[in-house]
Parts: sequence; C-alpha cells; structure tokens
Amino acid sequence: MENVSVNKIFGGWHKQYSHFSKTLNCSMRFAIYLPPQASSGNKVPVLYWLSGLTCNDENFSHKAGAQRAAAELGVAIVIPDTSPRGEDVADDEAYDLGQGAGFYVNATQAPWSKHYQMYDYVVDELPQLIEATFPVSDKRAISGHSMGGHGALVIALRHPERYLSVSAFSPISNPIDCPWGQKAFSTYLGKDREAWRSYDASELMREAKDFVPALVDQGEDDNFLLEQLKPEALTAAAKASNYPLELRMQDGYDHSYYFIASFIDEHLRFHAAHLYQ
Amino acid sequence: MENVSVNKIFGGWHKQYSHFSKTLNCSMRFAIYLPPQASSGNKVPVLYWLSGLTCNDENFSHKAGAQRAAAELGVAIVIPDTSPRGEDVADDEAYDLGQGAGFYVNATQAPWSKHYQMYDYVVDELPQLIEATFPVSDKRAISGHSMGGHGALVIALRHPERYLSVSAFSPISNPIDCPWGQKAFSTYLGKDREAWRSYDASELMREAKDFVPALVDQGEDDNFLLEQLKPEALTAAAKASNYPLELRMQDGYDHSYYFIASFIDEHLRFHAAHLYQ
Repeated sequence: MENVSVNKIFGGWHKQYSHFSKTLNCSMRFAIYLPPQASSGNKVPVLYWLSGLTCNDENFSHKAGAQRAAAELGVAIVIPDTSPRGEDVADDEAYDLGQGAGFYVNATQAPWSKHYQMYDYVVDELPQLIEATFPVSDKRAISGHSMGGHGALVIALRHPERYLSVSAFSPISNPIDCPWGQKAFSTYLGKDREAWRSYDASELMREAKDFVPALVDQGEDDNFLLEQLKPEALTAAAKASNYPLELRMQDGYDHSYYFIASFIDEHLRFHAAHLYQ
Repeated sequence: MENVSVNKIFGGWHKQYSHFSKTLNCSMRFAIYLPPQASSGNKVPVLYWLSGLTCNDENFSHKAGAQRAAAELGVAIVIPDTSPRGEDVADDEAYDLGQGAGFYVNATQAPWSKHYQMYDYVVDELPQLIEATFPVSDKRAISGHSMGGHGALVIALRHPERYLSVSAFSPISNPIDCPWGQKAFSTYLGKDREAWRSYDASELMREAKDFVPALVDQGEDDNFLLEQLKPEALTAAAKASNYPLELRMQDGYDHSYYFIASFIDEHLRFHAAHLYQ
C-alpha cells in the first residue's frame, strides 16, 4: 500500500492511498479521514462513503465538508473509488458505464467481469484492509450519493450484521426500473432480470427482515428525480416491510455536492449516534 | 449580467454570474452566496473572497465549506475570478503569470495594461455592481488565500474606510521580496520598484495610520512558507505601526483548501463580529 497524499484538516488527517486490489485485479486509490481522536489506543468507528457517477475519492473529500463533523464526533471516513481503473480495464465512452460507473455490483458478463467486482471490494476487501491498517474499530456505517446511495442501501440491506446504520443522498432507489440502472445492470449482469433484484434497494427493502436504521435525503429540485431516482419506490418498500426508513424530501435542493454539504452534518450525527450506541 | 448557475446550499443560494467588466475590458464570471437572511427588506453585509494562483470562483465555492457559517451568521460572500479572461487577453504559459494570476494590481506595462486592472475591479467596479444588484448592504469585509491573501491585505490597508475587517490565509505577505511577487510586479508594473510598494502588505502595514482589524492564519507545514509567504515581514510591520494584526501559525497545516476549510468558520465569525458591530 502506498501513501499518495497527507493533509491536516480539522485537527485530523486526510490521506490518500493506492493499493493493488485482488478483488478488482487492478491498482486502486482510496481516501481515509482519520479524526483527531483516532489512535492505536482509541480505535474509532468508520463511515464508508460511496460516490456517484464520474466521481473518484476526491469529489467527496473536497466538496462535502464532512471532515468538520467527523472530527467533532470521532468518526473515520473511508472513500473508495467508483470503479476499477486502468488502461487495461474495460471502459465505455458514456459517463454512466465503465470506469467511474461501477454501480457497486459484481459483474458476470464479459469483458466486465474481469475487473468490475465493486460489490465484493466494498463489502469485503476494503474493510479488511482498513481495519488491519488503521486505528479503527469494526463498527461500520455506510452512506453515498446517487449511484453510491444505491450502493450503500443495497450493501446495508444485504449485510445488516455488518453495518450499524445506513444513509443516502439522492439514491438510485429502484435501479431495475430506471434508465441508469437498466443500462448498467443489463451490461454488467446480463439479461436475466432476476439477477438484478439482489442489487435493487427497493426490492431488497420490501423483503427485509433484519433492519439497519436508514436515513435518506432527496432534493425536490433534483433534475434526475423523476426519471432516475424514484424515492417513492423506496417509501413503498419500507411501508411493506415496516422498515425503519426516514426519507426526507428537501425543498429547493438539487443533485449537486452543495446539497450534500448542506445535510452531511445531520447524516454524520445520525451515524455517530448508532456507531457510539 | 447573465445568471450562469443557481444552487441551494444551507438554506441560501449560491449563484454564478457573468458580466462585461468595463474596468477589465472583458467578460468576467463571479459567484455570490446569499444567505437565507438576505432579502430586499434585510440587506446583509458582504465578505469579498480573493482566491489564489490558478483559481477561479469555483475553488473556494466548492472546497472551503464557507456557506455553512455564512448562512448561520447572515453574511453574503462574493468570489471574483483571479484575473481577466478570454482568448484576446494576454497570457503566459507559467501558472504564476497571466490568466489565473492577476495579483490584484493595475498593470501599467504592455501588453498587460489593456485588461489586467484587477485592483480597480475588486475595489470599485465589483462592489458597485454587487450593491446595486443584490440585497446586500455597503458593510464590507475582505479575505483571501495566498495571492488572494496578498490582495485582501493590500486592499484593506489602502482603503480602511471601505472595509470593516480583513483576514487572510497563507498570504504572500511581502511580495516585493519573494519570487512570485517579483516576477508578477516586474511584469505588470515594470522595473521601478517604488511602484511595487503600494502593492506590498508589509510595506503598507508598516506605514499604516488608519487600522482595519486583521486576522491571518498560516500553516507551519506550508511548502511555500519560507520562500514565498514570509509572514515574519508582516509581523514586523505590524509591530512597527502597532497595527491590530492577529497572526496565527497553525501546526501541521499546509497550503491547501483543507487548511482553509479548517479555519474558515473562525474567519467568518471574526468578520461577522465587525460587520454586525
């Protein structure tokens, strides 16, 4: 593992690392924010943040302003990339497929399956690496934006034993029923729609029996709201399974990081309440 | 004036505009953050933020996290670009000269003098436009980073009647005595070093008689500290004139926006205390 950068922020340390991922079969970069409380004698819990289409670890690191509350609350933040990367990694010219658009699934279709195993990377390999390397505990929360909100919800819904809380901003709530999700799933997972269901937050939430407390914020002026995001599917699913979901429609907010910045403190406080329970 | 973008953030509105500047003789873009308190019946004071080398209005807007405290305190923020822009505007291949590197001076040398009049733009044209257009008062503060910290200090020192407070992060404190400043000043202002002195914060502070309360933060692990920034010159000047300068060396911090984000709240509170006095 190679340290790429170190910056002091709010008394803690924001660091980028590159490492070779066995799961993804390529070199990957991630960022970690270690709050001032973190030390070998005081392991802190971790929030995993999954970013949206076209992002890498830097968008959230630069734009969300999350380190302030993380430093106050004593929560580390780990920010993986959004896909495998590299010249020999399959790609597509479109912004919503290939590099920068891994959709946090394990691809089964050629040529994608060789590297696009983001689900296993985020669920297994990365937490193992993080917990073996840094002064953090195995108390985990997960959050994300848009494609990353989809990823966070799906991962928490499928592994309620591994996460104490989950949140999302503007998630792709029902990907099997929107253009982004249908394009990505048909490409990465093939034509069998039954295989898609295990990566659809609304489908999973409807059948859920073990709960992870969930907070979702969605801007009402989000350009992608009607066609791509469909929070109403998530609300209906939560009603069906009596899932502990708080979904808040936020008047006037859009899909940008300005929206995330406005509510990231509330998400961090929500997670910290569960991580330190 | 053309509205380029609008985003809701922390209950207020972050907006970008383009306009034709008579002073600069070209089209310019700036950003303004209007906090939720701002209305035609409730004009709010304004903090002008001057960015550093290579920046435009978006670096501070995206990375500083300033809107949160500005919304809480009821302070608007105006963020101009760092130079004139355009295909017919003189430029240089180096990052520290030409477009993105206006140094907030009025150039006297060809070919620069045709457009590079950033001092007058920031001091006169832009505040007139802002105060005629938006629900803001004529209570002004000014701040900036690196080249913009130099600009903020110089402008406040030369116009103590126009600004209620000034602050800076990692300012180029003594540009007549560092490579960045000497390169820019010799290019824009010519060989007469006497002309440079009116753009040097340490020179101006040493002779100051009318004071504007000043706060400066400087990271101790800033790569540019010794060669380019020289805060000790500012400290010595303040001592000579008994200037109300608080200059704080911050252990472990570097020259990046992570440093600015860590202390921007304190700067906003400092300015708000004077703007709302």
